[in-house]
Amino acid sequence: MRIKAVIEYDGGNYAGWQEQFGKSTIQGELQRALLDLTGQNIILHASGRTDAGVSAKNQVVHFDIDTNLKMYNLMMALNMRLPDDIRIKKMEQVSADFHARYSAKKKIYTYRMYASSIESPLRRKTHLQVWPNLDFNLMQEACRYFVGTHDFIGFSHQNPQIVSTIRTIYSCEMLKRDDDIIIKICGNGFLHNMVRIICGTILKVGQRKIKLSDLPDIINSKDRKRAGQTLPAFALTLENIEY
Amino acid sequence: MRIKAVIEYDGGNYAGWQEQFGKSTIQGELQRALLDLTGQNIILHASGRTDAGVSAKNQVVHFDIDTNLKMYNLMMALNMRLPDDIRIKKMEQVSADFHARYSAKKKIYTYRMYASSIESPLRRKTHLQVWPNLDFNLMQEACRYFVGTHDFIGFSHQNPQIVSTIRTIYSCEMLKRDDDIIIKICGNGFLHNMVRIICGTILKVGQRKIKLSDLPDIINSKDRKRAGQTLPAFALTLENIEY
Repeated sequence: MRIKAVIEYDGGNYAGWQEQFGKSTIQGELQRALLDLTGQNIILHASGRTDAGVSAKNQVVHFDIDTNLKMYNLMMALNMRLPDDIRIKKMEQVSADFHARYSAKKKIYTYRMYASSIESPLRRKTHLQVWPNLDFNLMQEACRYFVGTHDFIGFSHQNPQIVSTIRTIYSCEMLKRDDDIIIKICGNGFLHNMVRIICGTILKVGQRKIKLSDLPDIINSKDRKRAGQTLPAFALTLENIEY
Repeated sequence: MRIKAVIEYDGGNYAGWQEQFGKSTIQGELQRALLDLTGQNIILHASGRTDAGVSAKNQVVHFDIDTNLKMYNLMMALNMRLPDDIRIKKMEQVSADFHARYSAKKKIYTYRMYASSIESPLRRKTHLQVWPNLDFNLMQEACRYFVGTHDFIGFSHQNPQIVSTIRTIYSCEMLKRDDDIIIKICGNGFLHNMVRIICGTILKVGQRKIKLSDLPDIINSKDRKRAGQTLPAFALTLENIEY
């Protein structure tokens, strides 16, 4: 029986999604809970890996399991076995051809910043502090340049296993309220570090270190060195996966 | 020279605002930073104490100091000496008759909850989890009953030092978005635990354990036992003080 589950986690204490020997990971914690409950070594398949420190509001996974437990009871029994920074929010049986990664149509990420010369105690674990002398209009305009189908190899941490580095961004927008900045980006998939590098590039436009008019060239150049820096992981959240 | 300062803090690691022997407090940390920088034992006066675990976005304090430092440099030098969960956001010289507590005209607090049968890892340190079978309309109506001038002794933790237990609430409203609930309350002052008990009473109305029509009676009874429970401190934030 194939199960789809929606997971929320605070990535702050973990070495990312993927199981790694000797490290605490989200996948590792979930598989340990499944083993503890069922006695079965069950492998989870996520919509995609999240890096160390990245959080998720609605990560989606699938797994195959033999069980007589009702779905809600299975979910609650697993939640009891999980640390308080990981919870399964929904669980449902799906057809055998559902795949958390390959069936995904859209993925939505948010990146959080605040523009202030003074650190914010209440946002220090969720938002990146950036210097306030930014041109926010330029940043908002920069977002539009990433929308569409592009080869994003210059906006990724190289991974020789990847067959294609072409991805489609459906929307990219920057919301600003007081000194809070949220960049929300929706695409059919993202290369490793791609969201963090796109946000680093948008930030550099706001700092007037990259010109808006140079963005098409920077994207087309496929040159990692011309894009902005990889922003820190802790301010990135995987919001939703659409199927 | 009298200085007014605006402070943001994450109260999670502290035994509250007020200095206590052998305990880590916000006032204690700030006074230690002032002593370290100036060599002077300077006493801070806050708009009001916050309890253990309560956070503040804009707590206001005043203090008297002899210094030749410019205001911005003094603020930055103090911030360098503070832990990362306390920051001074603004500092300005004020007239000698300004008093953080007695000059305050309005205080605004928020209380955060989420209505779900499953814990939320991303909100576990900022929002109280409440069971979702609530009548949100009743809760929104309940808020209105607290607006006005009342003797709130029944909504307070007894303090024999307090001369008057009459306070005026200017506004009380509940904002709901998805499963997020925020109660925002503005008044000329609050008794000890008053916001947390008012929110506990609003929650009990939502749980249909207190009738809307009984609220005036409960307030007039001045009987602590008839009001709702004192909700936990960690989900309470002091938002703003108006002068």
